[in-house]
Order: sequence, then C-alpha cells, then structure tokens
Amino acid sequence: MGVIVQKFGGSSVADADKIFNVAGRIIDAYKKTDQVVVVVSAQGDTTDDLIEKAKEINTNPSKREMDVLLSTGEQITISLLSMALEKLGYPVISLTGWQVGIQTDSNNMAARIKKIDTQRINSELDKKKIVIVAGFQGINRYNDITTLGRGGSDTTAVALAAALHADICEIYTDVDGVYTADPRIIKNALKLKDVSYDEMLELASLGANVLHNRSVELAKKYNVDLEVKSSFEKIEGTKVKEVGLVEKMLVRGVARDNNVARISVVGIADKPGKAYKLFALLAKGQINVDVILQSIGRENTKDISFTVPADHLDDTLKILNDNLEVLEATEIKYSDKVSKVSIVGAGMASNPGVAAKMFEALYEAQININMISTSEIKVSVLIDEENAERAVKAIHAKFFDE
Amino acid sequence: MGVIVQKFGGSSVADADKIFNVAGRIIDAYKKTDQVVVVVSAQGDTTDDLIEKAKEINTNPSKREMDVLLSTGEQITISLLSMALEKLGYPVISLTGWQVGIQTDSNNMAARIKKIDTQRINSELDKKKIVIVAGFQGINRYNDITTLGRGGSDTTAVALAAALHADICEIYTDVDGVYTADPRIIKNALKLKDVSYDEMLELASLGANVLHNRSVELAKKYNVDLEVKSSFEKIEGTKVKEVGLVEKMLVRGVARDNNVARISVVGIADKPGKAYKLFALLAKGQINVDVILQSIGRENTKDISFTVPADHLDDTLKILNDNLEVLEATEIKYSDKVSKVSIVGAGMASNPGVAAKMFEALYEAQININMISTSEIKVSVLIDEENAERAVKAIHAKFFDE
Repeated sequence: MGVIVQKFGGSSVADADKIFNVAGRIIDAYKKTDQVVVVVSAQGDTTDDLIEKAKEINTNPSKREMDVLLSTGEQITISLLSMALEKLGYPVISLTGWQVGIQTDSNNMAARIKKIDTQRINSELDKKKIVIVAGFQGINRYNDITTLGRGGSDTTAVALAAALHADICEIYTDVDGVYTADPRIIKNALKLKDVSYDEMLELASLGANVLHNRSVELAKKYNVDLEVKSSFEKIEGTKVKEVGLVEKMLVRGVARDNNVARISVVGIADKPGKAYKLFALLAKGQINVDVILQSIGRENTKDISFTVPADHLDDTLKILNDNLEVLEATEIKYSDKVSKVSIVGAGMASNPGVAAKMFEALYEAQININMISTSEIKVSVLIDEENAERAVKAIHAKFFDE
Repeated sequence: MGVIVQKFGGSSVADADKIFNVAGRIIDAYKKTDQVVVVVSAQGDTTDDLIEKAKEINTNPSKREMDVLLSTGEQITISLLSMALEKLGYPVISLTGWQVGIQTDSNNMAARIKKIDTQRINSELDKKKIVIVAGFQGINRYNDITTLGRGGSDTTAVALAAALHADICEIYTDVDGVYTADPRIIKNALKLKDVSYDEMLELASLGANVLHNRSVELAKKYNVDLEVKSSFEKIEGTKVKEVGLVEKMLVRGVARDNNVARISVVGIADKPGKAYKLFALLAKGQINVDVILQSIGRENTKDISFTVPADHLDDTLKILNDNLEVLEATEIKYSDKVSKVSIVGAGMASNPGVAAKMFEALYEAQININMISTSEIKVSVLIDEENAERAVKAIHAKFFDE
C-alpha cells in the first residue's frame, strides 16, 4: 500500500484526550502502511482566541501579521500530536507549512497553493516516520507566512495527497459521512456510500458543511480519492471520487443554505447593456452572485432579482445604491430572510421528472417558491427562511421515503 | 545615528496595554533613528502554559517537538506588537527566527547561535521599517526549529546587535538598572551608572537576575554596548560596557544566590588522582561545580566540599553514590539550606583589604562562614540560607553606608 493522507479538524484535536484518540487513528493507518502523512488544524477555539487577541490591539491589522499570528495555532497542534505519538512509541516528526515547502501566492489570509515541495516529507517517509503537517498555512516567494482561508486544512490535505500520489485522502470530522440531508433535521437521512466530485461540490456549496469546495475542486482536478469519516466512531464514511455513470439513486441529497439574501433591482430601463452593467459592477466588487431571475416590469422597464451570500448583502446594497442612476433603476428591494433548498444528483439531467417531483413536494407542504434555478446536477429553489426546515423534510420524504 | 536594538521581556508585553507601552518606547527610538530592530519574548506566562499543555500529553517529549511548540510563544508576540505599531501608524514588519535566518546548532532547547543572516533585516531597515524579531528561537542546518534556552531572548538581542553593528542594545526589563544590591532587600541600594562586562558576569551569575550570562559573554566578545532599562519608567538605566581602569567604587555590588547546594565527600583516600576522578565524574554528568574546598580528614583521608546549583543536587548525589567505591569515600553529606553571598568589583584584585572588610561585616553580624572563594573581581562566602538576607544588609552597609 502507498501513502495515506489523513486530515483531522480542530474539534478532533481540541484537548489531550482527543489528541490521543486521533493518535490511535493514525496508528491504525500506520499498521497498514508505514507511509502516513497527517494534516491537522488548530485546536478547538484557538483560531478564534487568536483573532480576539489581535482585535484587542488593532481592529484592522495587516493580513500579513494576522497570518503570522494565526499560523501558530496549527504549529501548536502538530507538536502536541507528535508528542502523543512519541509517548505511544511511534516514530514521528512534525513539519510546519514552511518546513514542508508549501508555496503559495501572496494573497494573505486567502492564499492559494502554487507548489508543494515533497522532498522533506519523502525523506521522512523513507525513514518510516509518521509526518504531521500543519494545515492551513504556507509561505510565499518572499518567505512570508500565508494562510489559506476557510477550508484551508482540507485544501492542504488534498494538495499533499495529490503531490505525494497518495492512495487516499481521509478527511476526519465530527460527522461520519455525507448524508442525503442534514441528519440533525432529517432523522432518517441516509448516509451515502459514495458521491462524485461534482455532487459533492454542489452539496458543499449548498450548506452540507462537510468539505470545503476548494478542497473538492482540487481533488477533482488531481483525481484524489477522498473519504469523509468520523474522528470518533470507527465506521465506514463516504467516498468522494469519480463514480460510474448510472446510479440507482437519482437524487443524492437535499441541502439547505441559509446564508443567502435576495435582492431585486426594480424598474431598470429596458435597454441593451443594463443587465451587463449591473453584474459587471457586482463582479468588480467581488460579490458572488448566484441565482438570477429577470422579469418584465411596468412601462418599458424590467426587474432583475438575484441572490448573494448573506454576508455580501451590505456590500451589494452599497454598490447598487451608489450606481442607481447609471443603472436607471427606480428601487432596490432585498431580504435576508430567505433560504435556498436544493436537490443534488448526477443522474438528474436526463430525468426531467425530478424537478417536478420536488415542486410537488413543496406544493403539498404549501410552501411558496420565490425563485428557481437548475443546473446539470441540481435544482434549487429560493423560499422564505421560516419554511426551509419543513421544505427539506417534505422533499426528503418525497424522494427517499416513498 | 545607526541601528538601535531593543529587547523587551515577557512581562513587558504581557497584555494589550503593555504592548502599547512597548510600542511607545519603540517609537521614541524610531524618532531618533529610523533603524530600529526589536527583539521580544513570549507574553507573560505563555511559555509556562505551553509547557503545561505538553506535559498533559507527554511528560518526556522530544526536545525537537518542544521547540516547535515553545517557539509559537514569541511568534504570537511579534505579530501582536506589529499590529500595535500598525495601529499607531508606523511602518513595521515581524520576523520569526527562521525568517531572519538565525542559524543555530542542533542542540534543541539549549541551542547556540552560529550565524545570523542580516540580509532580510537590512532590506527591511532600508525601507525604514521597524523590524520586530522573535527572540529565543532559530533554525538548525536541517531547517528544524530550535530554541536557545534560558536567557535566550537577551542572547538573540545581543547577537543581532553584533551582527548589525548596532550603536546600542537596550535591554528593557521590570527593573530599571543594575544596583549595588537587590533593591527589594536593601532599601538604599544604589543604581550603578555603568558596569564592566566582567562585573556584570559575576553579578549575573550571583543572582542579580537582570541579564543572563550568555548574553553578557556575547556582548563582551563582540564589544556590544548594552543598557539595562525599565520598560515602564522613562529613566536612565545602567550601561554595561568596557569601562576604564580605576573606579572610585571598588565594590560594585553585593549579590546573593540561593540556588546553591553544598556537598561534602568525606573520607576520600588520600591518594593522587582521587580529586581528579571526582570532578571528572561530575563534569561527565554535566554538573556545574562552583566553590571547591579541600580539607584534611582523619587517618590518611581527605574531605572535599563543593557547591553546585541547587537544581543539580539530585543528579550530583546520584553520581556520587553510584561511585562511592571508585572514590574510596566513606560518606556524602549535603545541604541545600545554604546561600552564596558575594561582593563584586573590578578594582578588588589590587585591594586585599576588601575581603577583610567583608569578613568584618559578617563577624559583626555574627554570621558564620562555611566556605570562601575569591576571584579577580569577586569574593564569595557560603553561609546558612537563613542568614543570607542579614548578610547582604550588613555587607552593603559596610561598603556603601560608612
């Protein structure tokens, strides 16, 4: 067997007991293959505590210095986990991002990995050492510390798995796999044995908080087999990989995203180029626009509605209000009391009945649909937030209980 | 004016307020010269907290991993202090030990600096940036993190001052200079305007906890002018430098060291080579022997007494008891209820009356002397610990009040 990459998140290494639990998982892998590379995050609330410390001093510090500060969190974890493995009698060495040689661009707090130097890790693996790597961090060309932003440790793990041509990249979390819906809401949600990268991407972006999209995109690009598993229970998880064509289950999951806001720009002059101008302005402002809907307004005008992540709402409104005249619009309406509920499944494209079945479930539950959006592998509806949980239950029951 | 190196200890950067106080000191220097390099320690109890975290997991972790862990402490401080200076509107950059290029040997937790690469610091100084450097840490030739052990941040500061040919290396602490005696004991102790490196070395090793010996030795070797100053009060401190020959004050200070234990090896066979064997064994065991006294025992034997640091007592007793037969000794006696009280002054060597005056003070105070040791610039006596404070007072009064 070749290299195994394992990744453990912050909640899995939050205290000494949990660190020994993780050490046990690592030893299980080491007994199968002596080529084990482990990526860890900062312990529990460490990152939040460090951010708090910074805020006491400067509410707007440079991103470079934030990265110097935040990167200490993972460095603490790698040393403690190594000490636990030493205690248990296993050969181990910890490596920070710069010690590995995780080269990134200079975009502090949201850096992208450009290249990974595998020489040091391979030399330690040759000595049969378990290699513990600090996730979330790297260095830029000037030897400055960078961090990768949200989902950074997952990204580190997948990038290492790709660079080391690992057999598998195991992502350990506090859930034990990917489900057909959030198991906290839907009691009889089913755990998926495997999902494709594309399905996982849709599920991740739709709020099934298991894997960050960046890491799934990277895994897809380099064809890295992922497995999402529980840190605490020794049961099979969900494999994320390129799966075969036809699947029995057309719909793989029902996901909900509450971090969404709906905006309507009302009374735009119905001339060519106005929609272009609107979205060009938003793109320039780094706003991620999702579902878009255009309708005919009154008296030679049109209304354009779209959704953005809820935390982009303020920025979006500012851009729109600053440009009301340019857009020749009369009014901006908005709401952040909306949710996006989606069904995801690779087999959906060639089965038009799927969307209808979803709408039927919503109709039966008397839930009104604000907007609809579809892609090859998903159907999303925008509904009032207060109906979101009921909607997920109704849709899940329709597809998985009947 | 050229480069100024400033060093602030852990208690000077313990919280946000203190960090802003330190930032003020740095700005004062920056206004005089825009070439300021600052060395900082870990905040307050951070290092102890990290050691505690490690102990929860492994009471005997590898020194390599301890250094990975401990070095995060200073990294946190450099980022926070940089954020404070950013907040105040000054150009600043933080650098860790490895970012500077502080090359050390591989003796983890007690590494020695071998070389400092000044390229990065000089390039930042050329941009008029205040450079904040993590003290106490470096890297070895394998890119592994090392720490310098006790007094490490002072050593970093002096080594940087030497490498950068700084005009002065200011050591900021919670005392405002070097005194003729510990001002907590002797109310009318005098602050010294300057002391020589050799005097400072004796004072430091005798428990005037201001500067660690390693840093003073380094300052002497590279002729770095030091100044010990208060972090909190803006008053002149004490300069440590090569001072002129004759001084008015023969005795520069009275110091006390409670971290001392006396050991007597009784009834050693009076044959050549026995003393050599004894001290060779102790040297092999890394025991620092200080005052040595040999006396004639009974029936063709001799007794050898010596002192060691109190925290070496257990190790010393183990070595001696393991080798009783080799040494042909009959008994080991010891006490850690002793103190070493010393007077230090460069002018002492040519003034034999100085030692007599010290003994007179002790006689008048009715304090019994166990052992005596003298060097070019100091006279030390070993006395019972319970008399130490009284002894310091009596000696100080004799030399400074009369």
